[in-house]
Amino acid sequence: MKKVGVAILGLGVVGGGTYKILKEHRELYQKSHKIDIVVEAVLERDIEKAVALGVEREKVAANIQEICSNPDVDIVVEVMGGVEPAKTFVLDCLHAGKSVVTSNKELFCKYNHELEVAAKKNHCGLFYEASCVGGVPVIRALLDNLQGNKILSMIGIINGTTNYILTKMSAEGVSYQEVLKEAQKLGYAEANPTADVEGYDAAYKLSILSSLAFHTKIPFSKIYREGITEISVTDIEYGKKFGYVLKLLATGKNGDNGIEVRVHPAFIKNSHPLASVNDSYNAVYITGDCVEDVMLYGRGAGALPTGSAIVGDIIYCATHSNYQYSTFKNTAEASPSTKFIENFESAYYIRLNAADKPGVLAKVSSVFSKCGISVAQMSQEGQTGEDGCVPLIFITHTTRENNVKKAVSLIDASEDIAKVAAVIRVVE
Amino acid sequence: MKKVGVAILGLGVVGGGTYKILKEHRELYQKSHKIDIVVEAVLERDIEKAVALGVEREKVAANIQEICSNPDVDIVVEVMGGVEPAKTFVLDCLHAGKSVVTSNKELFCKYNHELEVAAKKNHCGLFYEASCVGGVPVIRALLDNLQGNKILSMIGIINGTTNYILTKMSAEGVSYQEVLKEAQKLGYAEANPTADVEGYDAAYKLSILSSLAFHTKIPFSKIYREGITEISVTDIEYGKKFGYVLKLLATGKNGDNGIEVRVHPAFIKNSHPLASVNDSYNAVYITGDCVEDVMLYGRGAGALPTGSAIVGDIIYCATHSNYQYSTFKNTAEASPSTKFIENFESAYYIRLNAADKPGVLAKVSSVFSKCGISVAQMSQEGQTGEDGCVPLIFITHTTRENNVKKAVSLIDASEDIAKVAAVIRVVE
Repeated sequence: MKKVGVAILGLGVVGGGTYKILKEHRELYQKSHKIDIVVEAVLERDIEKAVALGVEREKVAANIQEICSNPDVDIVVEVMGGVEPAKTFVLDCLHAGKSVVTSNKELFCKYNHELEVAAKKNHCGLFYEASCVGGVPVIRALLDNLQGNKILSMIGIINGTTNYILTKMSAEGVSYQEVLKEAQKLGYAEANPTADVEGYDAAYKLSILSSLAFHTKIPFSKIYREGITEISVTDIEYGKKFGYVLKLLATGKNGDNGIEVRVHPAFIKNSHPLASVNDSYNAVYITGDCVEDVMLYGRGAGALPTGSAIVGDIIYCATHSNYQYSTFKNTAEASPSTKFIENFESAYYIRLNAADKPGVLAKVSSVFSKCGISVAQMSQEGQTGEDGCVPLIFITHTTRENNVKKAVSLIDASEDIAKVAAVIRVVE
Repeated sequence: MKKVGVAILGLGVVGGGTYKILKEHRELYQKSHKIDIVVEAVLERDIEKAVALGVEREKVAANIQEICSNPDVDIVVEVMGGVEPAKTFVLDCLHAGKSVVTSNKELFCKYNHELEVAAKKNHCGLFYEASCVGGVPVIRALLDNLQGNKILSMIGIINGTTNYILTKMSAEGVSYQEVLKEAQKLGYAEANPTADVEGYDAAYKLSILSSLAFHTKIPFSKIYREGITEISVTDIEYGKKFGYVLKLLATGKNGDNGIEVRVHPAFIKNSHPLASVNDSYNAVYITGDCVEDVMLYGRGAGALPTGSAIVGDIIYCATHSNYQYSTFKNTAEASPSTKFIENFESAYYIRLNAADKPGVLAKVSSVFSKCGISVAQMSQEGQTGEDGCVPLIFITHTTRENNVKKAVSLIDASEDIAKVAAVIRVVE
């Protein structure tokens, strides 16, 4: 039986999950794939943590060189996260002829070019299914199933923490700050939640996924990014009245005029399949010119779901000998011919605090009209507040981002009309 | 640039779709994958049909031997359907050293062993993503993504025709016969709809999918099969009151006591992700011991969605040189060690036409109790009919299939209690 030696760099949540799966399923893989996968080494500063997991003390490596020079190690699993030292370690392993399986979205998003060049040069495999959307098989679907399509669009709920927070805010009417605190207590959000709540994590993943989907490098820097920290329960509740659910959406579109890539909160119709993706579940909704609509749904994070993706890559790597490269056309930057659209089209939800006096609606309408915004629905909500203002909500027809920015600044600049309380994009 | 010659056997719906995709996307694949895919031959009796699609007259082959001996053909796409002559043709092509991409679920379900042996012997690729659930990437997900899991269960809506019919019946309250007629008119159902409405098509697919999921051959003959022809709008409507949606489900479970595989109509909670899979959309809901729940959703049939899966396989075949075999352990029959469970566990919806007189409920309850059936919910619906009977509906707790069969025969045998009007399994 073929022996496959694995080293794991980092025994955090995902590394620990991967170790556990490999250990408990060793016999299963002997039967199912006729391979004997053995964890030959781990790199983990906290030796006692490794030992507590069941790792033999002598298998805890002192440094990356020990792993690179270990002839029993065939495949290295990098689950450390962050750019350094992960990048140096991965390159060291590739140069030493080890194949690499990584869950590191930031590293792969930023340095895939360098890593792929090194993998190819050294005839090693480089696999990253676990970098995006945990156990959901979206990378391979784009690479090996949907690659015959022109992918027209991709809308994803691809960050578990923010989806958990928004689901809770919507279900319980509790504020962002309160839900965040609870999520941190439960371990669903990090002590420093910035990467999740500000949309960085989703943007790394969108960079990787849209590069695959659109067959051209989509750098992180080209992705418009807006987080969920400013979202209020008030707007989630008003949205419900219009039949909308609020989600942090990662959107990639490949149209005739160029590519648009953006991560921001958005309202989506409650009948859309993505609307019922709740809690820490994730999903990617892909539209191709042949396949029409496909949705891939599941656990986007967690020790065992992400471990499932890593182990899938390990088995694939161990049972295939021809590795594919150039999945991102091996460029570090976007091709100069790729056109990016920043002034994208969308429908919008706009909430105003309007003075409750005659003529206000006419003035607002006139601003909208001047900016090329056509209103699809309008609603005056509730009673006049102590400030003499009343909430006015508009749902616009599809218009351009810059039109809305202009309207917002005109309304805000007017002393006597209204103040803009919230602007949220709406998926039509 | 690498040239890839393709032959298409059969220019029906899927063959025509595949031809169209390859022709229109030729330049796209030159750019995205650096391969030039050209349809070098088609096998189609109706030459004018081929010509109308745009095939040059000289590329319409007179017989399979012309294709086998054509050195320009690298990959043969078999989209004829049915066992013969498809099986002979596929074997001929494999023996001639051509790789094969097929959408033929009946052929692959019944003869995968023979085909895989021939492919391996001749160092050819054999791909069948299009055989199950059209454009939804479920085969490769099971083979290359989720293969590190012990798959515990798989529930699929994997037949578009029946899902269309059941969705219509539920939405419009129209009878099976009426909706079938309409579906036939619209081309959603065949003139002879047996393969779809009696569950054969779903059972072929379940055989293929569960063989992959459970890493052991699951023959068609082991699959319990029941179609939708007896389903009445009455039960769909009553089911709604209990929060259920009726679907034709293909279920595979791999438990400690053995494997169960079955295709039958079933009620599923309207909050389950599968409940909102409507019309001709399909989905497979997979639960693995690591990945937890994953759902893959999309178009399960149609010229372009199924063509998308075929073209995905063609590109994969053209860009990978090491083919994998033994995906079904290369056995023709189930391994003797595989235990199949026929007396499976389920909850049940049981509708009785009960005599509207004292003591009836006590007698029914006594039968249920004697048969080991515990009732979770009970409801008496509507008024006493002209026959002096009233509908009684029971939702049972989980029990065994044989318990319900016994109860049904006891109730039906009793002259004075009630008649069993419907029994439908319920997914808990």
